[in-house]
Amino acid sequence: MSDHPIAPVGPFEPPYYAVVFTSLRTERTEGYAEAAARMDELVADVPGFLGSDHAQTPGGLSITVSYFRDEESIKVWRADAEHRVVQKRGREEWYETYVTHVSKVERSYRFERE
Amino acid sequence: MSDHPIAPVGPFEPPYYAVVFTSLRTERTEGYAEAAARMDELVADVPGFLGSDHAQTPGGLSITVSYFRDEESIKVWRADAEHRVVQKRGREEWYETYVTHVSKVERSYRFERE
Repeated sequence: MSDHPIAPVGPFEPPYYAVVFTSLRTERTEGYAEAAARMDELVADVPGFLGSDHAQTPGGLSITVSYFRDEESIKVWRADAEHRVVQKRGREEWYETYVTHVSKVERSYRFERE
Repeated sequence: MSDHPIAPVGPFEPPYYAVVFTSLRTERTEGYAEAAARMDELVADVPGFLGSDHAQTPGGLSITVSYFRDEESIKVWRADAEHRVVQKRGREEWYETYVTHVSKVERSYRFERE
């Protein structure tokens, strides 16, 4: 997913939400990269979207963590029509399995080498 | 980290905790793999530890999400003496930067291809 910065984002001022999405892909790749890039673009316009982190082990697990200010901003993103179409296509074509954990961040810290 | 299964773990019965650890490594690798494997072993013995997910983009971001039943189990893990020594070494040698988000999972779902 091209738009993800290499450094971890955050932390943000708690409380905020972290939506943890862990997935294993199928072998079908057609349309995936374009859809992922488009979703990155769309979610960035959701009021209350704070940023996201993404990592993928080649041939293995993929994790995306998206941070939102509040429940309302998650609701807006979940209801987005284009997002819903892509989610459906994901279940039909791109994902073998995935798990979503919607969680409220209570505290967070950053370490940075000097 | 050798002990991480390829498939995403969970979901578990909410509420539970997700500790999201996002990091960028330095170029120093000495001792890292052994320490990571040992930490996987140790955390598995913490009462209330539910499992963890790990993904790493080669040369890029690494994300580990560890799931715990409650605050108490996180506290036990945080206080573990061997864990603290390894965390200190991580800041001195292995990590360029990291962010930790401690969050309470309110809801979760799994999709599985049929």
